Amino acid sequence: MLKQVKGGKLSVEDAVDRLRNLPYEDIGFARIDHHRPLRQGFPEVIFARGKAPEHVEGIVRGMLRNRHNILITRGNEELYERIKTLDKRAQFHALSGAISICRDRKIRGKGKILVVSAGTSDIPVAEEAQVTAEVMGNRVDSIYDVGVANIHRILSESQQLRSARIIIVVAGMEGALPSVVGGMVSVPVIAVPTSIGYGASFHGLAALLGMLNSCASNIATVNIDNGFGAGYLASVINRL
Amino acid sequence: MLKQVKGGKLSVEDAVDRLRNLPYEDIGFARIDHHRPLRQGFPEVIFARGKAPEHVEGIVRGMLRNRHNILITRGNEELYERIKTLDKRAQFHALSGAISICRDRKIRGKGKILVVSAGTSDIPVAEEAQVTAEVMGNRVDSIYDVGVANIHRILSESQQLRSARIIIVVAGMEGALPSVVGGMVSVPVIAVPTSIGYGASFHGLAALLGMLNSCASNIATVNIDNGFGAGYLASVINRL
Amino acid sequence: MLKQVKGGKLSVEDAVDRLRNLPYEDIGFARIDHHRPLRQGFPEVIFARGKAPEHVEGIVRGMLRNRHNILITRGNEELYERIKTLDKRAQFHALSGAISICRDRKIRGKGKILVVSAGTSDIPVAEEAQVTAEVMGNRVDSIYDVGVANIHRILSESQQLRSARIIIVVAGMEGALPSVVGGMVSVPVIAVPTSIGYGASFHGLAALLGMLNSCASNIATVNIDNGFGAGYLASVINRL
Amino acid sequence: MLKQVKGGKLSVEDAVDRLRNLPYEDIGFARIDHHRPLRQGFPEVIFARGKAPEHVEGIVRGMLRNRHNILITRGNEELYERIKTLDKRAQFHALSGAISICRDRKIRGKGKILVVSAGTSDIPVAEEAQVTAEVMGNRVDSIYDVGVANIHRILSESQQLRSARIIIVVAGMEGALPSVVGGMVSVPVIAVPTSIGYGASFHGLAALLGMLNSCASNIATVNIDNGFGAGYLASVINRL
Amino acid sequence: MLKQVKGGKLSVEDAVDRLRNLPYEDIGFARIDHHRPLRQGFPEVIFARGKAPEHVEGIVRGMLRNRHNILITRGNEELYERIKTLDKRAQFHALSGAISICRDRKIRGKGKILVVSAGTSDIPVAEEAQVTAEVMGNRVDSIYDVGVANIHRILSESQQLRSARIIIVVAGMEGALPSVVGGMVSVPVIAVPTSIGYGASFHGLAALLGMLNSCASNIATVNIDNGFGAGYLASVINRL
Amino acid sequence: MLKQVKGGKLSVEDAVDRLRNLPYEDIGFARIDHHRPLRQGFPEVIFARGKAPEHVEGIVRGMLRNRHNILITRGNEELYERIKTLDKRAQFHALSGAISICRDRKIRGKGKILVVSAGTSDIPVAEEAQVTAEVMGNRVDSIYDVGVANIHRILSESQQLRSARIIIVVAGMEGALPSVVGGMVSVPVIAVPTSIGYGASFHGLAALLGMLNSCASNIATVNIDNGFGAGYLASVINRL
Amino acid sequence: MLKQVKGGKLSVEDAVDRLRNLPYEDIGFARIDHHRPLRQGFPEVIFARGKAPEHVEGIVRGMLRNRHNILITRGNEELYERIKTLDKRAQFHALSGAISICRDRKIRGKGKILVVSAGTSDIPVAEEAQVTAEVMGNRVDSIYDVGVANIHRILSESQQLRSARIIIVVAGMEGALPSVVGGMVSVPVIAVPTSIGYGASFHGLAALLGMLNSCASNIATVNIDNGFGAGYLASVINRL
Amino acid sequence: MLKQVKGGKLSVEDAVDRLRNLPYEDIGFARIDHHRPLRQGFPEVIFARGKAPEHVEGIVRGMLRNRHNILITRGNEELYERIKTLDKRAQFHALSGAISICRDRKIRGKGKILVVSAGTSDIPVAEEAQVTAEVMGNRVDSIYDVGVANIHRILSESQQLRSARIIIVVAGMEGALPSVVGGMVSVPVIAVPTSIGYGASFHGLAALLGMLNSCASNIATVNIDNGFGAGYLASVINRL
Repeated sequence: MLKQVKGGKLSVEDAVDRLRNLPYEDIGFARIDHHRPLRQGFPEVIFARGKAPEHVEGIVRGMLRNRHNILITRGNEELYERIKTLDKRAQFHALSGAISICRDRKIRGKGKILVVSAGTSDIPVAEEAQVTAEVMGNRVDSIYDVGVANIHRILSESQQLRSARIIIVVAGMEGALPSVVGGMVSVPVIAVPTSIGYGASFHGLAALLGMLNSCASNIATVNIDNGFGAGYLASVINRL
Repeated sequence: MLKQVKGGKLSVEDAVDRLRNLPYEDIGFARIDHHRPLRQGFPEVIFARGKAPEHVEGIVRGMLRNRHNILITRGNEELYERIKTLDKRAQFHALSGAISICRDRKIRGKGKILVVSAGTSDIPVAEEAQVTAEVMGNRVDSIYDVGVANIHRILSESQQLRSARIIIVVAGMEGALPSVVGGMVSVPVIAVPTSIGYGASFHGLAALLGMLNSCASNIATVNIDNGFGAGYLASVINRL
Repeated sequence: MLKQVKGGKLSVEDAVDRLRNLPYEDIGFARIDHHRPLRQGFPEVIFARGKAPEHVEGIVRGMLRNRHNILITRGNEELYERIKTLDKRAQFHALSGAISICRDRKIRGKGKILVVSAGTSDIPVAEEAQVTAEVMGNRVDSIYDVGVANIHRILSESQQLRSARIIIVVAGMEGALPSVVGGMVSVPVIAVPTSIGYGASFHGLAALLGMLNSCASNIATVNIDNGFGAGYLASVINRL
Repeated sequence: MLKQVKGGKLSVEDAVDRLRNLPYEDIGFARIDHHRPLRQGFPEVIFARGKAPEHVEGIVRGMLRNRHNILITRGNEELYERIKTLDKRAQFHALSGAISICRDRKIRGKGKILVVSAGTSDIPVAEEAQVTAEVMGNRVDSIYDVGVANIHRILSESQQLRSARIIIVVAGMEGALPSVVGGMVSVPVIAVPTSIGYGASFHGLAALLGMLNSCASNIATVNIDNGFGAGYLASVINRL
Repeated sequence: MLKQVKGGKLSVEDAVDRLRNLPYEDIGFARIDHHRPLRQGFPEVIFARGKAPEHVEGIVRGMLRNRHNILITRGNEELYERIKTLDKRAQFHALSGAISICRDRKIRGKGKILVVSAGTSDIPVAEEAQVTAEVMGNRVDSIYDVGVANIHRILSESQQLRSARIIIVVAGMEGALPSVVGGMVSVPVIAVPTSIGYGASFHGLAALLGMLNSCASNIATVNIDNGFGAGYLASVINRL
Repeated sequence: MLKQVKGGKLSVEDAVDRLRNLPYEDIGFARIDHHRPLRQGFPEVIFARGKAPEHVEGIVRGMLRNRHNILITRGNEELYERIKTLDKRAQFHALSGAISICRDRKIRGKGKILVVSAGTSDIPVAEEAQVTAEVMGNRVDSIYDVGVANIHRILSESQQLRSARIIIVVAGMEGALPSVVGGMVSVPVIAVPTSIGYGASFHGLAALLGMLNSCASNIATVNIDNGFGAGYLASVINRL
Repeated sequence: MLKQVKGGKLSVEDAVDRLRNLPYEDIGFARIDHHRPLRQGFPEVIFARGKAPEHVEGIVRGMLRNRHNILITRGNEELYERIKTLDKRAQFHALSGAISICRDRKIRGKGKILVVSAGTSDIPVAEEAQVTAEVMGNRVDSIYDVGVANIHRILSESQQLRSARIIIVVAGMEGALPSVVGGMVSVPVIAVPTSIGYGASFHGLAALLGMLNSCASNIATVNIDNGFGAGYLASVINRL
Repeated sequence: MLKQVKGGKLSVEDAVDRLRNLPYEDIGFARIDHHRPLRQGFPEVIFARGKAPEHVEGIVRGMLRNRHNILITRGNEELYERIKTLDKRAQFHALSGAISICRDRKIRGKGKILVVSAGTSDIPVAEEAQVTAEVMGNRVDSIYDVGVANIHRILSESQQLRSARIIIVVAGMEGALPSVVGGMVSVPVIAVPTSIGYGASFHGLAALLGMLNSCASNIATVNIDNGFGAGYLASVINRL
C-alpha cells in the first residue's frame, strides 16, 4: 500500500483511511514477531488435562519444528510414552505429571530460584514449579517438608533461603509457611496454595486466604495448585 | 410427696407415676445447687453489647448479692462509670471494653496461662482472654506483637512459652501464629482468630480457616474475636 | 568451636560472628533432643491417605527401630495386611481405617477421656479419636448415638459424662451435641464436626459453624472429621 | 359478553375467542374476592423498614376502611406515635418494633401456639412471631431464655411444650434449640434462625444451617430473623 | 425405693437425695414408653445410604417384631431383594430408592397431602416425600412437572391445590414454585429444594435460598433433597 | 357451554360462575395453541443428562410426529446411535454431546450470531450455543481461542465482531473476554461463564462473577456452562 | 507521514516500520471517531456514588459542550441542585437518585421496552432502568408490584407483556418473577436481581442465583441492583 | 560469655549448654542488626487505621531518630496536620490517605515501576502503591483509567508498558485488566484487586478471583485494596 502511495496510485487521504481500518491482526502479529527475540527461552506449554493424548502428541509434533523447550503439565505416564517416541530428550516428572523436552539448556535466569514446600503432600505442586523454572533456563533448588509446625526445620535452612534470588513457597492446609519465609528474606516470595488438606481447607481456600492475608509484605499469591504459574513468574523475575 | 408415701397417704404405684412426670426443673435446679461448690470461682458473666446500660446495672446489682466475681464483656467507659458506683473494686480494661469486679482473688488454676497475640491490633481480644482468665482465678502472662512475619520475635520467647501450662494464641490476618506456637510446646494451645485484617480476610474467616487447618495437633479453635471463650476454656483446663 | 576459642585459635569477635550465623538447625535439633524425654509416649503418626502402601510400609519399618507407639490414620485393610507382617501387635480399627501398633502401654493420662458421638454415622471419626487417645496412653471410654433429637439419651449418660476429665464430642449434621454436653459438665470439651449430612450440611460446614458458635464456653473446635486432632489434644490436656 | 351471546349479538366462536384472550386479572380478581371469606382474620401487613413514616401512615389510613387487623413490622416509636393518632387501639411492641391494631379479636386458631427463644437477645424476633400470631387470632404463650447450654431449662418446660399445638423456636448462634425441642414433642416445630451472634455466626448463617440440618424430622425453617413468617405459618397451621 | 420409704427403711431425706441423683435414663425411658401410644402410626425409619445391606437387613429383622410400618430411604434394588425375603409386603419405589413395609394401613391424617414437583428431575425427591407420608397414614396425591416457566401448568391445577390440607412443593434450579403455590392457597406449604441444576445452582443452594426468601408467608423450608423430612412434617401437621 | 347459553339452557349468571372456575389449563392450552405460529422454528429440546437412553428415544419418537426441529443437549455417542435409527437427519456434535435433528432449515434470524470462545477448553460450551442457534434458524459463525492474555487475537477479529448482530462470548477462568468484546461492539453480548479452570475458579464462579461485574454495559450473563441458554436467547433476540 | 512517503522523504520500509510501532491510541481514537455516528443517541454516563459533587459538576460541564444526552446514576437531591444550574432540562428521579439531561429526544428504539418490578421496594432499581432506557431514546412502560406470591397480578398484565419488544424484570428476595415472565412471552427478558431482602437473601445473592438458574431460556441476568446495565442493554437490543 | 571461655572462667561444656539455651532473641536481634544494611532504603511503615492519632504521632517521633523514610498508610488530613509539625517534609496523598516523610531520596530500584489502574475509582489504591514504591526509592510512573471495556486505551499505552521493569495493575469490578496487561509484556505483573464495585463484586471478591484465575502466567496477586503490599513487593523485585 505504501508503494502505491509513493507511486501516486493512492492519495494520502485514502491511505490514511485504509490504515485506520487496517485489521489489527496484521499489526498484532507483526509486533509479536518483532518481540519474539526478547522472549527467547520461553517454553511452549501444553496443559494436558482434558486433552486427548493424540491431540497433545499432534501439538508437540508441531512444536518440535522450532527450537523452544516444550513443557507439558498435568500429563501422565501413558502420555509420556507417546511423547518419548517423538523426542528422546523427553523427561517424565512423575509426581506432578509434567513432561519436559529441554532442547535449549542455556541458563537465562540471573540468580537461583528456590522452591520450598511445607509438607510432603505438597511436593507434586512444588515439582511442577521446579520443572517449569528449569525448562525456562534457571538454576533451581528445592527444600521440602519444612512446615511451620516444626519451625526449626525452616529456620535451619536460612542460609539456603538467603542464597536465592526468588523463592517459591508451596503450602496447603493453613498456608502459613510463606509468611514465615517472607519475614526471613529480603527477596520476592511467590506463594502457591495447594488443595492439600480436608474439611475446612475447602480444597485449598484456607491456604489461599492465609497467603493473601500474609503479614509479610514481599509476598504475592498465585492460584491454588498453580505450580506452573509460580515457576513461570519466578523465571520472568529472574531474568530482570 | 415422700412424706405422704411414708404416711400411707399415697400408694407406691401412684408415687412412681408422679415421679415419672415430675417436672424436670426441680431435679434440674437441685442438681445445679448440688454442683455449685464444684463451680466455685466461676464468675458471673454479662455480654454487654446491645444491652441498655441501666439493664446491665440492674443485673450487676443482683449479682452483687452473692460473692462470685463479675465480668462484663464488650462494655465501654460510660458503662464503667455506672458500675463503679455499685462496687469500687470495679476495673475497666479499656482496649477490650471488659469491666471486672474481683471479689474472690483465690488462685484456682494450677499453672500459668499465657496469652500470646500476633499483632498490636489483636490486643483487645487478647486482653479479653486475659481478664477472663484472671477473674477466674489464674495467674496470667502475656506476650504481644510476635507475629510470624518476624519469626524471631516468637522464638525469642520460647522460655516464656515453655513456662506456661496452657497457651492462648490470638491472631488475625492469616492466623498462622498458633501453628508455630503449637509446634514449639507440648501443652494445649487455644487459638483465637480475630477479625483484624481487610479484603480477603473476610472479617476473620481467613484466620479462622487457617487455625482449623493447622498442621500442629495440640490446637483447638474458638469463634472469631472470642477472647472470653478462650480465657474461660483455658481456666477450665487449668483447674484439671 | 568453643575449644578453639579456649585454645586461642579463634578470636572472641570471630566466634561471635560465627555464632551469629550458626545454622539454626543445630540449635534446633539440640533443643528437640533435649526435649524428647518430655515427649515420651507421643506416638509416631502417619497420615496414610494418598500415600502408596509400600511407602507407608517403609516409614513404619524405620519407626520400628525406636520404641514409640505407631499410629497410621486413614488406612485400609490392605495396608493393615502389610503392616501386620512387620509387627504382630498391629491392630486394625475398621471403621476409621486406623492402624495402631502399641508397644508402650503405660498410662500417662491422669484421668479418663470420654468420646461421645451424636449419630452412628459419626462413629468412624469418633473411633479415630479414641484410638489416638489410647495409643497416647490414656484410659478412654465412649458413648455412641446420643444425638440431641432424643435429648434423654445424653441426659441418661450424665454420670458417665461427669466421670471424665476431658470429653470429645463428635457430631455431624447440625452439630448441636457439644453445646448440650458442654452445659452438663465443668471439664473441657473438644468438639469435632463431621462431614456426615447432605444438602445444606455442605460437607460439615453446618456442624463446624454450629460448634464455633456454641453458647457453652468450655468448648473448642477442631477441623471437620479431625478425630486424630481431637484425640491428640485431649491426650495433651490429660497429661497436665 | 355472555348477555350478548344469549341475545345473539355475538357468535359462540367469537365469544370463545374473546374468552381465550380474556385478561387474567378479571378471573384473578374474581377468584380473590370469592376466596376472601376463607381468609377472614388474616391481617393486613406492612413491612415498615425503608418506608417513609408518612407513607406507612397513608397505607394504614386506607386499611382502616376495612375491618381486618393491621400489623406493621420493623417500625419504631416515632412511627407508633403517628399511627396511634389514627386508631387508639394501636399497640407498640418495643423489642421487635411491631405495631398492631387489633380490631377483630376472635380466636380462630384451634390450639395454642408456643414461642420459645434460646437467648434473651433472640426475644425481639420471638416477639415479632408472637405478635403476628396474636393478631391472626391465636392463643400464644412464650418461653424465653432456654438455650441448650443449660439443657435443664428447656427440659423443665416439657409440660408447657406438650400443651402446644404448634411450636415456634427462635435461636441464634449455633441454632441448636429446635433439634432438642423437636425431639421432645410430636407437634410441628417452626425454626427461626436469628442473626444474633458474632464472628463465625456470619449474621445468622450458622443458625440457619444448623436448623436445616436438624436431626429431628418435625422441623421446617424460615428465613433468618423472620419472626413474622413463623407467626404467620403457625397461624395457618393452627386453623387446620 | 419407694417401698423402702413406705417400710421406713429409707428416710424421706435420703430418698429425696437419691431421687435428685436418679439417673435420667430411667425417667427418660419411662417417659418414652408412656408416650408411645401417642406416636401410633409413626414408622420406624432407616437411612440406608452408607450402611451395609446386611446391616440394614438386621435392623429390619428386629423392627419386624413390633407392628410399626417400616421405611427405608435411599436404598436400591439389591437391598430391596433382601428385604422382600423378610416381609412380602415390602415395596420398592425405584426413583427415590425408598423401600416401604406397610403393615398398618390406618389413615391417621385428617386431610389430603399434595406433593407438587417443578420438573421431572425433581420426582425422586417428591416420591420420597410421598412414600413417607403414605407410610405415616395419609392420603397423598401428586402433581408433577408444573414448573413456573410455564405458569399455566400450575394454574390449571388450582382445584387440586385447593383440595389439599398440606402441600409439599419440590423444586430445583431457581426454586420458585413454592412462592407461586404459596400465593395460590391458604394452607401450609413445605418447600423442598433439590440439588437438580448445574453451574450456579451450587448443588441446590440457589433453590434453598430462593425458598427461604420467598415472598409468600405460608412457607417453611427443609434441607436440600430432604423429601423424607417434608413428608414426615406434613404427616405431623396432618394429624393436628 | 356457550352454546348452552345461546340455547337458553344455561343462565348468564351460571355461565359466569362456571367461567370463573373454568380450569386454567383449558385457557392455558388454548393460548399456547393460539401462540404456536408465533413460535414457529422453536425447537423441541431434551436435556439428556440423567435420563435413560430409552426414555430419550421415546420422547424423540413422540416429537417426530410434528415438524419442529429437535435438539438433545448433553447426550453422547451411544444415545446418538439410537436417535439416528429414528431419523437419518440426526447429527452428533461430539464436543458438546448435542444431537440435532434439523427438519426445518428456514433462516428466521435477521442477522448473524457470532459465538466467540476464550480458550480451546471452552469450545464444548461454545458448540452447544452454536448448535442451538443453528437449530433455531440462524446463521452462525464462530471464533475460537481468542482469550485476553493475547489481546491481539481478539483485536484481529474486529471486522468479524462488527459483522454480527448478536455476540455470544464463552469464557472460563477469569472470564474477562466479554468485557473486551463488549467494549469493541455496539450490539448485545451474551456472556457464558464456563467451569473451565481449577483451584480458585471454584467450578466457574470466578468467571461468573467476572462477567456479572463487567464494566461494559451491553452485556448480560447466563448460568455457568449454559451454552444452550445463550444460543436460545440469542435466537430470540435475532428474530426481533 | 504518508506525505513524507509520497514526497520520497521516507522510504516505504521505514514507513512500514513506523506504522508497525504506531501508538495504538491514534488508530484507536480514529476508530472511535469513525464509529461515533453509529453510536448516536448513546448518552454520556456518570456513576456519581463516591464522586465529589464538584467533580461531577465539572464532568457535566465538559459534557455539555457536545450534544449527547447526559445520565448521572446514584446521585442525590443536593447534586441535582448543582446540575440544574448548568442546564435547566436536568430532571431528578428521586427513587433511584438518577439525574438526566435529555437534549436529544429522538426515538431510536424500534419497539417498546417494558420494566416490570416484583415489589415496591424494587422500584428504585426499576426506575434506574427506565430512566436509562428513556435517555437512550426508547419508549418505555412499567408495571410495578407484580411479585409471584400473587400470581394473578402478573397474569393480568399478559397483554402489556405481549406488547413489549424487550422486558426488564426487577426482583429481590427469591427473584422468581423473571422465570414466570420469561415463560409468558417470546421476547428477550433481562433479569435484574436487587439487594432487597434480609437474612438469607445475602444482599441479593439469593435473587441473583435464582435468576441464573431460571428454567426459562429467554433470560439473561445482570449484576445485583444494576438497573442502569439492564436499561442500557435493552436499548442496545431495541435498536437492532 | 566467650571472653569467660577464653579466660577459662567457663568450661566449654557449660558454654555449649548455655548457648543451647541462649534465648533466640539475642541471635535474632543480632541477625537483624547484621542484615540492616542490606535493607537500606526500606521505610518504616505504620498502618494508621484504628490507631489513635496521638499514638501514631508517638511512633513517628520515635522513628524520626533514625534516618529511614517513613510511610503512614490509611491516614487522613487531621493526622497529617499532626505529623507535619514533627517534620516539614511530610507529604499528604489525599486520595489514599497516605502520609510520607522522605528523608532518603536515593534511587535504589534498577528500573521503572509502572502503576496502571482500570477505573478512576481505583486510583486511591493505585496511589498507595505508587507512594510506597517512591518512598522505597523507585522511579514510578502511572497510567490511570485504562479499563478493558475500551481496550484501545490500554493498547495505546503499549510503549509505556514496555518501558517498565515491573507493572502493578489495580482493578476492581471484574478485575480483567491484569490479564490483558500480562499478555502485552514480558515483565512481572503484580495484580491488586480493589473493593470497587457493587452487588456481585462482593467487596472485591470478583476481582480477586478473576486475577487468581488469570490466563496470563506472569501475574501474581495481593490482597484486596492492598496497594501498599503491591508497591512493597514491586520495590523488592526492582532491587534485584
